[in-house]
Amino acid sequence: MTSIPESHRDLLGEQFLTLGTISASGRPQLSVVWFLAEGDTIKMSLNTARQKVKNLIANPAASVIITGTPPYRYVEVRGEAEITPDDDYAFADKVGAKYNADLRTMDKPGEKRVVVTIRPTRVVTWGDAAGS
Amino acid sequence: MTSIPESHRDLLGEQFLTLGTISASGRPQLSVVWFLAEGDTIKMSLNTARQKVKNLIANPAASVIITGTPPYRYVEVRGEAEITPDDDYAFADKVGAKYNADLRTMDKPGEKRVVVTIRPTRVVTWGDAAGS
Repeated sequence: MTSIPESHRDLLGEQFLTLGTISASGRPQLSVVWFLAEGDTIKMSLNTARQKVKNLIANPAASVIITGTPPYRYVEVRGEAEITPDDDYAFADKVGAKYNADLRTMDKPGEKRVVVTIRPTRVVTWGDAAGS
Repeated sequence: MTSIPESHRDLLGEQFLTLGTISASGRPQLSVVWFLAEGDTIKMSLNTARQKVKNLIANPAASVIITGTPPYRYVEVRGEAEITPDDDYAFADKVGAKYNADLRTMDKPGEKRVVVTIRPTRVVTWGDAAGS
């Protein structure tokens, strides 16, 4: 699959995802991240000081997994991360609106915020539709 | 860090982790897995038919992340996966005891079960100790 099926679209309303990137030494690295979904596209507001962003700049191969509660249902979205500047915090403020948080306060002087966008090239689901 | 600090050891009591492996094409793959912890060592009972096991046989670089609820606290454990046979389901039955499940019923004829062991070579934590 290259799109998120109806059976698992509800998971896009979850609050967190786990992002997998690959380090300079070729090893997987995982972290928990806030996100917004636009259709099937996953967008995250990240700070360039973070290792995950450095990893993605060097190697855009990425995967995210969003789980239900309990996590017997999940959707994994794989793709290439596109990184675009968000110097004016336009996207960061959208994320902040979802989480009732001000992302500007999370960055130190000199740090830059970017939008990390993952359009699915492969989608894997586990479990059935909610309530089925 | 190469061991799990006291502040995050409680997370080893969680029910699920997310496992990150690297595919043959060098991309991260994520899935949610049952586990047992023995000290700082993470052990999983997996079936050799699964892509994640094929990935680890080809490339043992692995990472697991265990999150609290909500996931503002987590511990990531990176290491090399060691894969050992579990033909008699001795370890699978230990996992089954934790989850009140019979893992023998999850395998098709001809499929083999293995123990995937990750000893930490790098530990990353996020957030404070529980209740602090």
